[in-house]
Amino acid sequence: MVSVGQISGAMGTYANTDPQVEELTCRKLGLEPDTASTQVIARDRHAEYIQTLALVGAALERFSTEIRNLQRTDVLEVEENFAKGQKGSSAMPHKRNPIRSERIGGLARVLRSYVVAALENCALWHERDISHSSVERMMLPDCSATLHFMLREMTEVVKGLGVYPDNMARNMNVYGGVVFSQRVLLALVESGISREDAYRIVQRNAHSAWNTDGGNFRANLEADAEVSGRLSPDQLADCFSTDLHQANLAVIWERLGI
Amino acid sequence: MVSVGQISGAMGTYANTDPQVEELTCRKLGLEPDTASTQVIARDRHAEYIQTLALVGAALERFSTEIRNLQRTDVLEVEENFAKGQKGSSAMPHKRNPIRSERIGGLARVLRSYVVAALENCALWHERDISHSSVERMMLPDCSATLHFMLREMTEVVKGLGVYPDNMARNMNVYGGVVFSQRVLLALVESGISREDAYRIVQRNAHSAWNTDGGNFRANLEADAEVSGRLSPDQLADCFSTDLHQANLAVIWERLGI
Amino acid sequence: MVSVGQISGAMGTYANTDPQVEELTCRKLGLEPDTASTQVIARDRHAEYIQTLALVGAALERFSTEIRNLQRTDVLEVEENFAKGQKGSSAMPHKRNPIRSERIGGLARVLRSYVVAALENCALWHERDISHSSVERMMLPDCSATLHFMLREMTEVVKGLGVYPDNMARNMNVYGGVVFSQRVLLALVESGISREDAYRIVQRNAHSAWNTDGGNFRANLEADAEVSGRLSPDQLADCFSTDLHQANLAVIWERLGI
Amino acid sequence: MVSVGQISGAMGTYANTDPQVEELTCRKLGLEPDTASTQVIARDRHAEYIQTLALVGAALERFSTEIRNLQRTDVLEVEENFAKGQKGSSAMPHKRNPIRSERIGGLARVLRSYVVAALENCALWHERDISHSSVERMMLPDCSATLHFMLREMTEVVKGLGVYPDNMARNMNVYGGVVFSQRVLLALVESGISREDAYRIVQRNAHSAWNTDGGNFRANLEADAEVSGRLSPDQLADCFSTDLHQANLAVIWERLGI
Repeated sequence: MVSVGQISGAMGTYANTDPQVEELTCRKLGLEPDTASTQVIARDRHAEYIQTLALVGAALERFSTEIRNLQRTDVLEVEENFAKGQKGSSAMPHKRNPIRSERIGGLARVLRSYVVAALENCALWHERDISHSSVERMMLPDCSATLHFMLREMTEVVKGLGVYPDNMARNMNVYGGVVFSQRVLLALVESGISREDAYRIVQRNAHSAWNTDGGNFRANLEADAEVSGRLSPDQLADCFSTDLHQANLAVIWERLGI
Repeated sequence: MVSVGQISGAMGTYANTDPQVEELTCRKLGLEPDTASTQVIARDRHAEYIQTLALVGAALERFSTEIRNLQRTDVLEVEENFAKGQKGSSAMPHKRNPIRSERIGGLARVLRSYVVAALENCALWHERDISHSSVERMMLPDCSATLHFMLREMTEVVKGLGVYPDNMARNMNVYGGVVFSQRVLLALVESGISREDAYRIVQRNAHSAWNTDGGNFRANLEADAEVSGRLSPDQLADCFSTDLHQANLAVIWERLGI
Repeated sequence: MVSVGQISGAMGTYANTDPQVEELTCRKLGLEPDTASTQVIARDRHAEYIQTLALVGAALERFSTEIRNLQRTDVLEVEENFAKGQKGSSAMPHKRNPIRSERIGGLARVLRSYVVAALENCALWHERDISHSSVERMMLPDCSATLHFMLREMTEVVKGLGVYPDNMARNMNVYGGVVFSQRVLLALVESGISREDAYRIVQRNAHSAWNTDGGNFRANLEADAEVSGRLSPDQLADCFSTDLHQANLAVIWERLGI
Repeated sequence: MVSVGQISGAMGTYANTDPQVEELTCRKLGLEPDTASTQVIARDRHAEYIQTLALVGAALERFSTEIRNLQRTDVLEVEENFAKGQKGSSAMPHKRNPIRSERIGGLARVLRSYVVAALENCALWHERDISHSSVERMMLPDCSATLHFMLREMTEVVKGLGVYPDNMARNMNVYGGVVFSQRVLLALVESGISREDAYRIVQRNAHSAWNTDGGNFRANLEADAEVSGRLSPDQLADCFSTDLHQANLAVIWERLGI
């Protein structure tokens, strides 16, 4: 909790000011009186504040890294909004870069860097020297304003995000849907063979499809007697459906309180 | 909260495992199911854990820095326990160093350093690469064991701490008790002169005592007509009492729940 | 320079040991005498050492990040060696992860984290307290061994790296070679129109190819009267050649002393 | 080396610009051409620059920490200049705080924090994303200007520093000069007894003087038969001289090139 106030005197002992002065003043300002202050409020509160900003920054970086990955030319499942009239890269007119997501990722580095300075500020000499002050004059406005900016940027990114479901489907089905291999593996195990055998069968068909022009995992499976003898066409088709991955979404929404 | 578990599959979608499996397993282990996992539990939980360790480390460093300052040859208000049979410094037999407090201060640096690595671990590619793993294999045991060691060391330091009230009194009364100057200032203001005038009077008497062999702030005040004309000997004596600084201790104890 | 030695006594004044003792001893050990030591060698030397390790770590991370990007399923221009008998991902048999490159990227985080602790170690009290010692006992072996391990890992990665030139060519020519758009732009400018006009022409043809099933930038240009009226088929073909990008390699090799 | 320039094109291949353009331009600007650039100059150069600033900052912090320690009320061997008309602490008129040295110590924390962000900037995706840019817009001016300010502050501190040799002598001779105990130890060893015996004798006399009102190490030694039987009054007096500590100053000056 960082919303605390303190009027406890030069030693933190209320020697010349009644504690009630502190309480009344804090109440008017919507603050709690600091539980045990020295001449100043202990800097672990400020450190926890900066740590929280850095943690939010890392969460935003997590989203922005995902967007950067999905916006790659070779993936292109989402795309940051191309502002009206905006040119592409100066060198390559076709290229749209996820510049806001990259910016958010960069600024998360600044936030987490400052955590160390904030933690160094805690151990003041005799519980009160002024060494923390110069740090805080840079750190507190910089970190607060930076996270505010990052939140605004991310809001813009999400609001304007182009989403390309067709590319998602295309990428999922590359090389004949190798990403569905785990489901095939489990179906084979359920059909009564050992996991080792199932793994061997799936890996064989996956490897021959993988990274091969025209490679097709699903077609390989359909042509593999060890598979067709165990899984019906319907059972195999089920393995390549995304339905299972969406079946339990409600559980997650509920936990998140959405 | 870091005590969470997760069995949500390679995509975090419970595609092949019912969420109930996760719930039952977690319940048996005394864990909460993670609200929204991917293939892994998001690393912001781990980062918050390391941040908390670093914050506790900074709190211990705050105590240890105070002890280091108070154990200085020139201050000597407290002293870390000299173990039976322990020699002093190899070069200077009389010298007892606050080695445990210095050690605690050093290790606090290690803890806060790791915060940045912990925060960098959050943004995994496609919400799951393995880059965090090598960091965690070093960071999690090192930070956990280091803070545990620091807590044990600090417990030993506090249990065995030599405390020297006579030196505290001597240091407070150096140069005739200049540390009590604020109380004199306030007493003069209460006697009816302006703060500026009071400040000028106090500073004059403090400066002539300060850093002077035999300098005596209190004697200077007693001999200063501008003071003696305003404060009675009893009033002046009150200014040099520590009673006021202890009068409100109960308020602080109560807030701390002690 | 970190290879220095010091035998200058408890104050760094050579009060009880002649400087020649230091010089002779250092010479035997292949060290330089420290220019101006206190009781200890100043910790900025150790900090510079850790900074150098972290910088090398960042260089390795740069390579490893490139490999991780190039090994993505959707790119697959290089691939870390799949050890004989090694299984793929436990969930997805076809999947080969760049686990060593991810590991190197993770460990680079550990190295750079320690830089802050190393820098905090510099300002010892009275130029010699023992607070740096606990840090160094963790930091020096951990960082040295970690970088050594990273260098070995990276050597293994490079030695065993699968390189797929066909995929490189495929990726470069996706959507009819939009990556060559800059060269087309310059050719159009050289043909006598303004950069703005050229940019508009190129962007138009790039955008209609981009992210479109069967989109073909080069075919679009060939069919565009504004282009064919200015660039001959040979000139256009030249724009899609990689020769120009390799023409000046010798300059770079020479600068690198290779 | 950070003074490099680069005009190597969007791929760093000089595909559309002859390397001579780079060389001529760099020469005019007093820069070296970067040995092997991508679209940008690799960020390890920027990281090394920030590391160097942080290392200089740590050196300044080393000086400033020494000054803060020496300016303590209980030590007072040096004192930052008290500007004409400057008031002391608002609460304690007599108190002069080393505010500039504390400020320098604080700002060193900011510099070293940024080192991690600078190192994180090195591993750009495909050797060129824009994530480093937002970091550098904050980091490069902030760090450069901060170190410049610190250097100016430290220059002012040193120029105006009050130095109190009498207090230095007083502090060295506290408790009858216990700081000279090592020299006594060595003199006893040279007189023919074992180091263990000498240590025991010195420690006995040091401990009974230490932290005792009126304690006097030197008087204790003079009254100790085990000492007086081995060291003549002149030999003992030599042990309490600072001459030995200044005898080899010229060696250090010479090494520093002063």
